[in-house]
Amino acid sequence: MHEFDPGVVREPYLSLARDFPGEDVYPTDDFRTEWGPVFHRGRLDGTARVLVIGQDPAQHEAIVRRILVGTADRRVQGFLARLGIDRSYVMVNTFLYSVFGQQGGQAHAEDPEIAKYRNSWLDALVTDNEVEAVIALGSLAGTAFGMWRESGPIGAAFDGTFHKIIHPTFPESSGDHAAAMARLTASWNEGLEALHPAVSHPDHARQLVPYGPELTAGDLTPVPAADFPLGLPDWMRSEQPWAVRTGATAAEKRATVVVTIPPDLRPF
Amino acid sequence: MHEFDPGVVREPYLSLARDFPGEDVYPTDDFRTEWGPVFHRGRLDGTARVLVIGQDPAQHEAIVRRILVGTADRRVQGFLARLGIDRSYVMVNTFLYSVFGQQGGQAHAEDPEIAKYRNSWLDALVTDNEVEAVIALGSLAGTAFGMWRESGPIGAAFDGTFHKIIHPTFPESSGDHAAAMARLTASWNEGLEALHPAVSHPDHARQLVPYGPELTAGDLTPVPAADFPLGLPDWMRSEQPWAVRTGATAAEKRATVVVTIPPDLRPF
Repeated sequence: MHEFDPGVVREPYLSLARDFPGEDVYPTDDFRTEWGPVFHRGRLDGTARVLVIGQDPAQHEAIVRRILVGTADRRVQGFLARLGIDRSYVMVNTFLYSVFGQQGGQAHAEDPEIAKYRNSWLDALVTDNEVEAVIALGSLAGTAFGMWRESGPIGAAFDGTFHKIIHPTFPESSGDHAAAMARLTASWNEGLEALHPAVSHPDHARQLVPYGPELTAGDLTPVPAADFPLGLPDWMRSEQPWAVRTGATAAEKRATVVVTIPPDLRPF
Repeated sequence: MHEFDPGVVREPYLSLARDFPGEDVYPTDDFRTEWGPVFHRGRLDGTARVLVIGQDPAQHEAIVRRILVGTADRRVQGFLARLGIDRSYVMVNTFLYSVFGQQGGQAHAEDPEIAKYRNSWLDALVTDNEVEAVIALGSLAGTAFGMWRESGPIGAAFDGTFHKIIHPTFPESSGDHAAAMARLTASWNEGLEALHPAVSHPDHARQLVPYGPELTAGDLTPVPAADFPLGLPDWMRSEQPWAVRTGATAAEKRATVVVTIPPDLRPF
């Protein structure tokens, strides 16, 4: 049997998905609006206990049409597993579109129009689900959560546990990889301490086991097939990157995603 | 408002989609199983009046995850429009996976295991919808329809009108393009004559207007956004090709799809 995620098929998400903001809200100088919005990953059926707020979709996400499906996102999946959460989660991003350029995200961290639509999703998610914990991946996601709390009665009334952890790809964007890994695992261990007791209804009850000084292969959990749209091949969930932006000019690179099946996962 | 197709979200299609055949039924020498199955395009909500049987998905379909979305498929969309059908259709293919090599399709035209699963879909579609007309695109699709008719009581009892027309990309695979176009439009006009009276419940009643000796720009109808998954950008429905298989070796080419936004459709 092949599991898959049907995506947005019911209210309150259907109405939100039919009315997403475009270039008038997300300027094309700062966002790759040309690849379309990518909305979520995980449960939209009311069964989510943990809500993850990420940053923005990248090239793998543009093909899969689900967020947080890159290879580093196995780290997030492993973090959820330590909370006993294997299925009862839902993820949305700070930004609906991929950030373009170094400062694109920071410049729009407190953009009220972007926040308005994002807050509609957060309102819908905590209303439709019994969310016990919210995890922000990185500072932009943390800001997004704070803005939502201030945005209206649903955010103000939320009484679950919130914790911000360092973004899963922080070590890759840092010069000193070992030091960055140590910072990340320390941050994630703090997150586990705060969040583990808050998740009263895990999918599988698990003792809290902290991370070592760096993430190892055993700390990575594959993204489940049940999170992917129907028919996508399994290599799209492999630990190897398979989508890259390439091009001879900046414009060509922005306009191109090359999808390549990893060599050892080809059946031919 | 942005329309989109939620895809497979209800029975009888859900069970079929969770249990599709893999490499044991579709050999990798003849089919690009590595890109995953692509199931349908159009309505799976019981409202289809016309059923289209195509051949197999190609590279655009591997990204969109819907069949018959290539630029030539605007021809099919235009054919449906002449029948008064703008929305009340559903399309499935003879093959769930892209055919690899010249003879891959022909060699499996009467493959019983491939037919078995395909017949389950055809049974489901004519049971779930009040199908008035079935259109086969090309000879392999025609064979598929014939095998279904022989396969059991549901196929045998089908009393709608069937017609096979020349495959929409026949002119592109033919040496004499003008002659091939003349053959195609003659075939499609015969199809209109047979099918137009059979479609008793068109979305919009339209007088039968035959094609001229070749297809012109006015004969092409864009694939509706309502047929595409949520969030896909509009340029994926443009008249320009945007997905190509490239690679220095045959294996690399088989493993690669390059997605490039057409230059005049880039917002940057």
